[in-house]
Amino acid sequence: MEKRADALQRLRRTHEGAVLAALRGEGPMSRTRLTEHTGLSRTTLFAIISELMERGAVIESGAEDDGRPRGRGRPATRVSLNPDAGLLVGVDLGRRRIRVAIANIARQVVATAVDDSAPDADESEQADLAIALVRKVCDDRGIGLRALEAVGIGLVGVMDAPDRRRRAAERLEAAFGTRVEVDNNARLAALAEQTWGAARSAEDVVYVRWAVGVGGGFISGGRLLRGGHGASGEVGHVSVDPAGPRCHCGGRGCLEGRIGVPALLEAAASRGVRLTGTDDLLEAARSRTPEVTAVVVEAARTLGTVLAGTVAQLDPRRVVVGGDLATLGGLVLDPIRSAIGELALPGKPRALDVVPADLGPAASAMGAIALVLKEQDPLPPGPRPADP
Amino acid sequence: MEKRADALQRLRRTHEGAVLAALRGEGPMSRTRLTEHTGLSRTTLFAIISELMERGAVIESGAEDDGRPRGRGRPATRVSLNPDAGLLVGVDLGRRRIRVAIANIARQVVATAVDDSAPDADESEQADLAIALVRKVCDDRGIGLRALEAVGIGLVGVMDAPDRRRRAAERLEAAFGTRVEVDNNARLAALAEQTWGAARSAEDVVYVRWAVGVGGGFISGGRLLRGGHGASGEVGHVSVDPAGPRCHCGGRGCLEGRIGVPALLEAAASRGVRLTGTDDLLEAARSRTPEVTAVVVEAARTLGTVLAGTVAQLDPRRVVVGGDLATLGGLVLDPIRSAIGELALPGKPRALDVVPADLGPAASAMGAIALVLKEQDPLPPGPRPADP
Repeated sequence: MEKRADALQRLRRTHEGAVLAALRGEGPMSRTRLTEHTGLSRTTLFAIISELMERGAVIESGAEDDGRPRGRGRPATRVSLNPDAGLLVGVDLGRRRIRVAIANIARQVVATAVDDSAPDADESEQADLAIALVRKVCDDRGIGLRALEAVGIGLVGVMDAPDRRRRAAERLEAAFGTRVEVDNNARLAALAEQTWGAARSAEDVVYVRWAVGVGGGFISGGRLLRGGHGASGEVGHVSVDPAGPRCHCGGRGCLEGRIGVPALLEAAASRGVRLTGTDDLLEAARSRTPEVTAVVVEAARTLGTVLAGTVAQLDPRRVVVGGDLATLGGLVLDPIRSAIGELALPGKPRALDVVPADLGPAASAMGAIALVLKEQDPLPPGPRPADP
Repeated sequence: MEKRADALQRLRRTHEGAVLAALRGEGPMSRTRLTEHTGLSRTTLFAIISELMERGAVIESGAEDDGRPRGRGRPATRVSLNPDAGLLVGVDLGRRRIRVAIANIARQVVATAVDDSAPDADESEQADLAIALVRKVCDDRGIGLRALEAVGIGLVGVMDAPDRRRRAAERLEAAFGTRVEVDNNARLAALAEQTWGAARSAEDVVYVRWAVGVGGGFISGGRLLRGGHGASGEVGHVSVDPAGPRCHCGGRGCLEGRIGVPALLEAAASRGVRLTGTDDLLEAARSRTPEVTAVVVEAARTLGTVLAGTVAQLDPRRVVVGGDLATLGGLVLDPIRSAIGELALPGKPRALDVVPADLGPAASAMGAIALVLKEQDPLPPGPRPADP
């Protein structure tokens, strides 16, 4: 019986999807035109529309003049998507900040917001903050959440920590009563750039995020790579010095320890320039304080050398550099470009752009929306070899 | 009209596929049972079987005793796959050797063969050698090629060279009159290991081939990664010394230049041990000539360091090491394991095996069969984000 209920539920969602897709694609329509457009029976269509209206996902708008002869009774009104319904929520639980993004039924991001998080907050506490932030934004902006379909969550770090995933997911699941999906937030930023930003319509992308930490995400053949333990994309933990200092990941000489913001602040200090944090560092680099530009350019060159290896191995058509440091533009992009140009199979020149990310700090929260927009988890199987 | 003919052709192939799949899965069957099993009409089924017999793909075998009451006339004979029909051919056009593999209709590799190729032969000349080699093996072993469905070809080097692809493909297409597909031969070896060998049933695999050259192939989420220009997997062209000697790829300090067999021979010579080639090197390493083991272990450590970066970025569950050097077993695998263990996110221990390849030197030719076994080129689209 369970199974039959599931099947009916799925059928209903398919029909709902057909109605919503028609309204997204064609704009407001009368119920009559919707039956023609979707091929659903009047009875089914009317039931689906009532429920969508009840949930606030669609609204009734003015009468339609479709040039048809009108029968007796009131003129047919049109049904349209409710632009104020929040259908998808993306949450980014960052190291020191919580960000949320909300997409409407047309799959446009209609609101983003940010709040501070204590550095020692665990995922449950962060999730509670995120829930309050989502509710506040929706109240302030008149966005209804009764049509909410799914919540995506981005977490710092590698994804093979089921406890952290669970803690983050269960609060949001309970609060919103919807499907929740979780992924690494640098990888989600890659997905956001592919969906709306600098990697739009690119099929093969290396994305790196350079800030306090160094993370990334890879897209190959149009698909975000996950890895065997959900930890693909950790560009920051490529060792650039196997005999170097111990990294928090347990390795030695990791790129992140060499070029993350703390390392840059330290390098600037050793050249006699005291800086207090990321903003200070960026400001000094923008005003071309020579000691600071030297530190940043050297770090960009190191990043470029690692990315040259990534490019040689993954063969992308586009490298997207995001994170705070990418806002320095040519100062960091040019050394990266030249390292890749000199080291990644230069004898076989291929089309390859190195570009800054487009989306800014809300990228991961947007990527969490992109995550639930897709038919993810489980991924549809790729072509597999037949058994011999 | 062309289109209608195409559609009929496709339909026919689908029906043919259903008949062959039934015979593969269930063994020999009477025509009557085949109609029941496939749901095809008698007329269609009989026509398809005649054609398959004419092409030598299926044969008539003894009468079936299926316990049913027999009508008048001769007893029903059974139809079975012809074990001697070669349906798929894989060709590996290596640096100095041509290898071919032939799979029968049950998708088992039934024959492999090897021939020398002049080092300066171009792809057309190599393709001619391969054609002659395929014909000779089939003659010798009584394998018919009239049911041939497809030919896969493996080439050395990166795949963004349309001329090389074309030269190799057009000879084989003309000779055999079938669909031909081309890919890089290290990547094909990865595919073969996933299909029949050490990476069987693994979804996330880093494969590296260590011999005269150093190449590789990556499988992520069950799919062979291609890259934006068909050049994914070039582990050998990760720079281990950006200020190092120029590589034939145009880069500097590439891994291949540091650990490929020529570099190992040179390193051994500088320690006073003169060796003439790969076999000589392997022999000296196997008999534990101290200078040679030192050279090999150091090279394995260097490879391990590069692979640690690949593992940190791609997060495989299995690393497969193939090529001549992998036949040295623990001597090369242990330094690779320890470098990966020390450098690839050791603080987040994850299930990861480092294992030798299973398939030996015919792996690429077998991989060329795996290539055409799959529904490749174009790959079915993965889940893509909806347009915002």
